[in-house]
Amino acid sequence: MVIVMKPHAPQEMIDKISQKMTSLGCDVRLTQGENYCILGLVGDTSKINPSQIEANEHVEKLLRVQHPFKLASRLFHPEDTVIQVNGCKIGGGNVTIMAGPCSVESEEQLMTIAHAVKKEGAHILRGGAYKPRTSPYSFQGMGEEGLKLLQKAKEATGMPIVTEVMDQENFDVVEQYADILQIGARNMQNFSLLKRAGKSNKPILLKRGLSATIEELLMSAEYIMSKGNQNVILCERGIRTFETYTRNTLDLSAITVIKELSHLPIIIDPSHATGKWSMVEPLSKGAIAVGADGLIIEVHHQPELALSDGAQSLKPEKFARLMRAVEKIAAIE
Amino acid sequence: MVIVMKPHAPQEMIDKISQKMTSLGCDVRLTQGENYCILGLVGDTSKINPSQIEANEHVEKLLRVQHPFKLASRLFHPEDTVIQVNGCKIGGGNVTIMAGPCSVESEEQLMTIAHAVKKEGAHILRGGAYKPRTSPYSFQGMGEEGLKLLQKAKEATGMPIVTEVMDQENFDVVEQYADILQIGARNMQNFSLLKRAGKSNKPILLKRGLSATIEELLMSAEYIMSKGNQNVILCERGIRTFETYTRNTLDLSAITVIKELSHLPIIIDPSHATGKWSMVEPLSKGAIAVGADGLIIEVHHQPELALSDGAQSLKPEKFARLMRAVEKIAAIE
Amino acid sequence: MVIVMKPHAPQEMIDKISQKMTSLGCDVRLTQGENYCILGLVGDTSKINPSQIEANEHVEKLLRVQHPFKLASRLFHPEDTVIQVNGCKIGGGNVTIMAGPCSVESEEQLMTIAHAVKKEGAHILRGGAYKPRTSPYSFQGMGEEGLKLLQKAKEATGMPIVTEVMDQENFDVVEQYADILQIGARNMQNFSLLKRAGKSNKPILLKRGLSATIEELLMSAEYIMSKGNQNVILCERGIRTFETYTRNTLDLSAITVIKELSHLPIIIDPSHATGKWSMVEPLSKGAIAVGADGLIIEVHHQPELALSDGAQSLKPEKFARLMRAVEKIAAIE
Amino acid sequence: MVIVMKPHAPQEMIDKISQKMTSLGCDVRLTQGENYCILGLVGDTSKINPSQIEANEHVEKLLRVQHPFKLASRLFHPEDTVIQVNGCKIGGGNVTIMAGPCSVESEEQLMTIAHAVKKEGAHILRGGAYKPRTSPYSFQGMGEEGLKLLQKAKEATGMPIVTEVMDQENFDVVEQYADILQIGARNMQNFSLLKRAGKSNKPILLKRGLSATIEELLMSAEYIMSKGNQNVILCERGIRTFETYTRNTLDLSAITVIKELSHLPIIIDPSHATGKWSMVEPLSKGAIAVGADGLIIEVHHQPELALSDGAQSLKPEKFARLMRAVEKIAAIE
Repeated sequence: MVIVMKPHAPQEMIDKISQKMTSLGCDVRLTQGENYCILGLVGDTSKINPSQIEANEHVEKLLRVQHPFKLASRLFHPEDTVIQVNGCKIGGGNVTIMAGPCSVESEEQLMTIAHAVKKEGAHILRGGAYKPRTSPYSFQGMGEEGLKLLQKAKEATGMPIVTEVMDQENFDVVEQYADILQIGARNMQNFSLLKRAGKSNKPILLKRGLSATIEELLMSAEYIMSKGNQNVILCERGIRTFETYTRNTLDLSAITVIKELSHLPIIIDPSHATGKWSMVEPLSKGAIAVGADGLIIEVHHQPELALSDGAQSLKPEKFARLMRAVEKIAAIE
Repeated sequence: MVIVMKPHAPQEMIDKISQKMTSLGCDVRLTQGENYCILGLVGDTSKINPSQIEANEHVEKLLRVQHPFKLASRLFHPEDTVIQVNGCKIGGGNVTIMAGPCSVESEEQLMTIAHAVKKEGAHILRGGAYKPRTSPYSFQGMGEEGLKLLQKAKEATGMPIVTEVMDQENFDVVEQYADILQIGARNMQNFSLLKRAGKSNKPILLKRGLSATIEELLMSAEYIMSKGNQNVILCERGIRTFETYTRNTLDLSAITVIKELSHLPIIIDPSHATGKWSMVEPLSKGAIAVGADGLIIEVHHQPELALSDGAQSLKPEKFARLMRAVEKIAAIE
Repeated sequence: MVIVMKPHAPQEMIDKISQKMTSLGCDVRLTQGENYCILGLVGDTSKINPSQIEANEHVEKLLRVQHPFKLASRLFHPEDTVIQVNGCKIGGGNVTIMAGPCSVESEEQLMTIAHAVKKEGAHILRGGAYKPRTSPYSFQGMGEEGLKLLQKAKEATGMPIVTEVMDQENFDVVEQYADILQIGARNMQNFSLLKRAGKSNKPILLKRGLSATIEELLMSAEYIMSKGNQNVILCERGIRTFETYTRNTLDLSAITVIKELSHLPIIIDPSHATGKWSMVEPLSKGAIAVGADGLIIEVHHQPELALSDGAQSLKPEKFARLMRAVEKIAAIE
Repeated sequence: MVIVMKPHAPQEMIDKISQKMTSLGCDVRLTQGENYCILGLVGDTSKINPSQIEANEHVEKLLRVQHPFKLASRLFHPEDTVIQVNGCKIGGGNVTIMAGPCSVESEEQLMTIAHAVKKEGAHILRGGAYKPRTSPYSFQGMGEEGLKLLQKAKEATGMPIVTEVMDQENFDVVEQYADILQIGARNMQNFSLLKRAGKSNKPILLKRGLSATIEELLMSAEYIMSKGNQNVILCERGIRTFETYTRNTLDLSAITVIKELSHLPIIIDPSHATGKWSMVEPLSKGAIAVGADGLIIEVHHQPELALSDGAQSLKPEKFARLMRAVEKIAAIE
């Protein structure tokens, strides 16, 4: 950490801050420039509260040298994390495809889609039973009934299940049925939920918030990991920008950034990012070419009847085409 | 709602969609332009699922005529909502000042600050007992202990209490102590929490999410109201933009937009928006001049020792200056 | 175009607007909903000034049905535009690689790099002679001297030249040397420059502005095309978002959007988008997989001595690796 | 400047960079932390090219201590700049109101509006003769004819003129008629135009780009000032964000930031920021309350006939009300 003092900061204030930092266990290296005096802090800075320092009116700003996450950092864990779910490997060079409907709507709907995606090579079945909807008047999901249908589909196809958990109240029941628990973009900084997820023995699929920086995403992973659960799968699903033609802007450079900063697997959700089925295949290909560890794709056999997100759902035959295209790219080299 | 068909959409598809819309209870008015055929829907569109329509590959896009919120809309509730809390009126032309520390840290700290802000004319005492922190390693709040101190401060000063509730688990206990329950920016679309808030008999202070549109903020208010609680106070606290000199960008135009669209009170939080104490006073003056119904301000007698957000906390003497400046602006006309 | 009147707009105002629209040559189709009256306009809306209509205080808003660009639109020009430059084809399924230094710095530097990128299969040589720099104190380019070196490099390698033109003043001289003229992101809405480019007989490489929507990019292409020059190559080079780890956020979904909306070729500049050489190769692969018509890549044999953008320049050996990877992806299918 | 080396950077690389920095005239202060080695640079860093340093693969990042602008910086010029235009003072605590039509359309239109705004107390007359329009098919301004009408209006009312210059080609003619030359948001980083403006003896009104940081705005001012023209008036006119209800998001906190960082005057354009006349008055009041040095307001006596920007133009009677409201706020204290 580097503290930049304001020009003309009184010497006694510089001394006072230096002493305080020393008392908190850091070495302080003072450098006096032409206009600015800067204090480099060496050692364990974990007890330092940056906001307290910035509260000082003679402090210009604080420059951070190190990222604030540790367990999620590749610096302290150089090799890729590989998460195993019922024989599927996620991370470490594997390409894992999760697919299925946005919402579980009925046994027939789920079974039809589950068999279709299984046939085309999907590894994990997705499907929402508890649905976060922008409007209180929209379909809110089938709840536990939906979870039971997911279990049936798992038994029928052998595919493990990923499904969303929206709150602590329903955590236990979702945990009982799901193989991977998804925390949605709007809950990425629901810290109470993250803490609960940290005590789960199931892997967590953590989606990046609509306006979360990559560092914030990794800090939310850190929340989960700091409570004991090291199995976190990150998911980029589009960020909010000024562009309105797509629902969100898919940030594929996040793959390379996360690969540099962290050892955790990172998958891509092109369905939510774009909101348009016609863009799902090209962006899936792009994601795998950049180096993503997998995809999560919405598939529906009757999108025009889907209770949620029909506009971005692929029909099974289009999903088949996507799978063939993605396999070719994944096979390169 | 207006459906725009793709150029060259087959007539039978236009007929099929028209029939479906009619079967859902809408009148359909078809207009054939040079390149585009558009379908205007009249009547109750509440049963229509836009995403199902957009899933049709012959549909270019959907244009919405009406906002999706009803209870929060000024269209159906023209007069301002005025919320009464222990004699304080919020909304309807009143200027309400909420002030206090970011976090409750100790009895001495809270009492000192509570008396100071009361003396300068603050109406409501703020203070966090449960703290949403980006890092799992930061101070997470005193919990119920903090709530008890807030109650003491209320008894000592007569000021009602506003404090944050982070999850359903602690909702009951926070509800018991607080006069107004705050839902933070990161929880604005924690729909489970919103539903619980809708069943509370206490007013809810709902903060705008970092990247939430004003419409989404009003939809989150609609969630609360649709469950029965009509007492929602909105709060603009800065949105996330590309500008990094301030922590967030305070969107004061949101005041005028919300006044047009909704009857709910809207207050401003300049402390979190800017992250810098030196900007709190000028932006507070700006907020009142634009027409905000109040402010929520962080005050600390020793910001350089604050356990959270010291950098944006005003010392009591600076808060006093702010109060005098704001009073002058509020008195105009 | 659809005009949405405010609830309770007086009938005489609705009539007045209808008459005005009719007098401007449109048919007006009126639909009266429960709360809103909407006016659908059919026919030639080109004489209508939307801002005049919105100036009316009884008008709620205007909904646009059609995109405002015509010459750039795929609707009126379904087949891909293919631009030929000295035998290179750009667009229509070809993958064109433009590579070279950010700035032309010296004959030795340019020749070294030009031969290196030619050897690895680049089709077009890039290099800046006039440099738009954020700081007036930074290297501003070699000017015409640089253009002459580019010509030498062209003669030596046979590669056509793409180089930036910053203003009308130097347009003639750049036009004389360059095979493709680049208009930079910061000049995307320099309308005087666009008009001049529209009178050129050389293709224009038009970069998307840092915060330009795709529609605005196409409107800037329309400016050029409306003056007579139909040879416009679009370039996505990252947009400005809240994320700061990368310099900008590369919007690869823009490729699919532009392919839907327009017939013009679209290439990707991963060097400027990310600002980091280590991200150039993976995002180049992603761009080609999504369907870009080409790439523009910064290469420097001594990035640590480059006068501009060293941090994002690839060394020739890394460029070679990129070329091999991109070729494999382009060869698929 | 502080260079952060990557963990495990080889000692010889650290030495090599240190030597290079020393050879460029800086003192280097090395601090070895647990994971990171950092190099603090003291002295004249102006010869250092940050991108060259970041090109080194052992360098993690560069942290800047000092802002890159000098002439525009309050650090080296503590007192406010006050610009005098025909007796009007801009900056230094004065509140200057510029008002008039978006475009000059005819003598009658301009004279009507000029007399109206003069009567209500406006100090400077605005009006566009050269118009930057998003569409090539929109009204592009009256050109020199418009400038002549502005001169007539100046003679009739005594108000000095502010009008936009779009390019170098027309700079001389605009300079001849205008008292203040405006550079529009889309030209904020048209560096050729900035250089020309730097050689003018007229004050420049420099608008912030739609996605320009405050630092970039000040760097564009620095461009002008570095060529000799110290009379730069900054203007905040809304930035581009994800919010679409207003055309742009007016960033009133920019006023306080600029007052801290720079000595130049800063005015606010609420008309372009919001795009809606109903928001102009409240945000004007807010701007003055925050501490702006003035406003620039679009006024039109017949907005529904305006050739540009009718939707955001105030009628004279509404402008009168705005003036009275603003005067009361300006009079406080």
